[in-house]
Amino acid sequence: MFAPAYLDHNATTPVSSAALEAMLPYLRQQFGNASSRHEYGREARRAIDTARQRVAQAVGAHPTEVIFTSGGSEANNLFIKGAAIARRTVDKRFPLVAISAIEHPCVREPARQLAKAGGSLREIAVDAECRIASADFSTVISEQPALISVMLANNETGAVQDIATLAAMAAPTGAWFHSDAVQALGKIPVDFRSLNAAGVHALTFSAHKLGGPKGAGALVVDKRVELAPLIAGGGHERGLRSGTENVPAIVGFGVACAEAVERLQQNAQRLRALRDEIERGLVQQGAAIFAATADRLPNTVYFSLSGIDGETLVAKLDRAGYAVASGAACSSANPEPSHVLLSMGIEPALARGAVRISLGPNNTNAEIAGFLQALAATRTNLQSLTAMVG
Amino acid sequence: MFAPAYLDHNATTPVSSAALEAMLPYLRQQFGNASSRHEYGREARRAIDTARQRVAQAVGAHPTEVIFTSGGSEANNLFIKGAAIARRTVDKRFPLVAISAIEHPCVREPARQLAKAGGSLREIAVDAECRIASADFSTVISEQPALISVMLANNETGAVQDIATLAAMAAPTGAWFHSDAVQALGKIPVDFRSLNAAGVHALTFSAHKLGGPKGAGALVVDKRVELAPLIAGGGHERGLRSGTENVPAIVGFGVACAEAVERLQQNAQRLRALRDEIERGLVQQGAAIFAATADRLPNTVYFSLSGIDGETLVAKLDRAGYAVASGAACSSANPEPSHVLLSMGIEPALARGAVRISLGPNNTNAEIAGFLQALAATRTNLQSLTAMVG
Repeated sequence: MFAPAYLDHNATTPVSSAALEAMLPYLRQQFGNASSRHEYGREARRAIDTARQRVAQAVGAHPTEVIFTSGGSEANNLFIKGAAIARRTVDKRFPLVAISAIEHPCVREPARQLAKAGGSLREIAVDAECRIASADFSTVISEQPALISVMLANNETGAVQDIATLAAMAAPTGAWFHSDAVQALGKIPVDFRSLNAAGVHALTFSAHKLGGPKGAGALVVDKRVELAPLIAGGGHERGLRSGTENVPAIVGFGVACAEAVERLQQNAQRLRALRDEIERGLVQQGAAIFAATADRLPNTVYFSLSGIDGETLVAKLDRAGYAVASGAACSSANPEPSHVLLSMGIEPALARGAVRISLGPNNTNAEIAGFLQALAATRTNLQSLTAMVG
Repeated sequence: MFAPAYLDHNATTPVSSAALEAMLPYLRQQFGNASSRHEYGREARRAIDTARQRVAQAVGAHPTEVIFTSGGSEANNLFIKGAAIARRTVDKRFPLVAISAIEHPCVREPARQLAKAGGSLREIAVDAECRIASADFSTVISEQPALISVMLANNETGAVQDIATLAAMAAPTGAWFHSDAVQALGKIPVDFRSLNAAGVHALTFSAHKLGGPKGAGALVVDKRVELAPLIAGGGHERGLRSGTENVPAIVGFGVACAEAVERLQQNAQRLRALRDEIERGLVQQGAAIFAATADRLPNTVYFSLSGIDGETLVAKLDRAGYAVASGAACSSANPEPSHVLLSMGIEPALARGAVRISLGPNNTNAEIAGFLQALAATRTNLQSLTAMVG
């Protein structure tokens, strides 16, 4: 089988063999509905309980603070919409919601839906290195938003925000502070207990970003936060997320969380070394590295080669056997330059060249060396083509 | 391994071996994100395209009419909330929503949420045999609801509604007509094209009710229906359901749909024979069969033994090696008698005795005989206990 080198772990990850092994029995003989009052059902319920404990432990939360969802997009929508409904103004209007300018569409779009439905939306500026602009954050605080959402680590640049400090700044206003931590878990330490003490009320996680399967995620939330359910029905997940639990995916999520956190230090060190190696090679080839001086995820590098279109480069590298991304995977259908780069003040021409490499624990030095060679060859080829056309 | 006889297929079904085999590559080496612009991503996209064609063909729809969701609860919430938002009144209030009195909580609860948020809700009565009361349906029509939701087959009694006729009655009012077909697909013929021609605008399906995995479902919807997305974000599923697609579950859904529809006639005949056998045995043991004269799913029988509590009976039968349900699985945490039976006018005392048997293609005559013996023994035991206590 043709197996290109996979350098796109921020889009999705392979399911770890331990997670898959743990899932298989629940796809075979242990297929019960966790709400059923017989042995098949109890078996499924026990599996979910164990997974909930694993996820809770991995993120420093109590199991009762974990609400399982179908993934990160649902968890972000649940917080943004569910909390906005709970915090409607006395005249039943949606409240002011503040989100950073670099949020994933699954935070930005529900926030926009609320604004369209009578609420209001404020975007918080970032600086050229993809860090929340603290002056603008202070201004936002003074505008008294009811909800604030700032992602922990950005999916494109990998920039990590100091959400404990931001949440502490926001705490006196009584705003509920949420952070999309989908890209952070398994790559940097995430501890809900200490973040919660600083003023963070909720975190979003996704299984398939950290070696678990697609189809499971979680909103970890302070129980003082009121939420209206997005998916209402049978009353699963303390009434906050109805629907038959996806037992195999939840089981895989639990195992993947435990594994990712257990191997965090070891993986992070290795990934950072590989990433630094790529970055040196990229700089030698004349690339601009985005958010280069920001605190970043150890596995992510986001760059642009002047005069080369990102989409084209991704297609050429794919044919050469290297799977990388241009912009965020979820908005790849969109030909506009990345809103993250534009909000950092990057020129649209340079932003259109953006290519993201995101590493995983199975990537090797040989893959990195091969990638840099393939890039050099592709670049020479594309640039001579440009020279001919120009 | 201890494997009780599984007689609870309306709660969930085992994943068919063909569906599981089709899923496994997507849980292993073909793990890409379908939005990614490289070979891993294209492979995932092709798998989703094929699954969409399979689901569409199984339900008589066009592939572009299929919106994949995480399951039936999400699909029902998407229709009820998404259409209610699109059909807000000129003063931005939610419209009148009419649902049958026997809907699953994942239709009833979102409808109640809308009513609480300023809309209004009308429940349509059913008769003693769990059939929509046509006089009340006519009255509802005259009240001009914007949305109507009547389930195709009831999860508890198995009663099948003539939704083509109901939709045709409602059509002149311009209401959007939705039907939760989760329990119908694979058990009775379901054809969106002909239902759509009669005036049905949308149908809900769930993979794990028909031999597919948990974690996938669909709303099949007429494209003239406007919907606000429940989960907004990256713009997946024509902007109507964002979030990284659960590729393995969607693949399994496609295969299970094709299989279930292909084997429909053969399975239905066999299941009906087994069901009739159980029913004869139950009647001999003095059971009351609910909705006995209604048009019912071939696999479902719902009964009560006078003076015996349903929960108790389910627990005893579980210990005897037979997995059956009391009331709907999703509301099993709720000790209240079934709202379906109460709306049929069944006395609460008799409703508390309700036990549901729902068969699947793998059930055997030996299991049915064994079940009836176990029931007789349990009944004698419980009734002598009651006699002693009484």
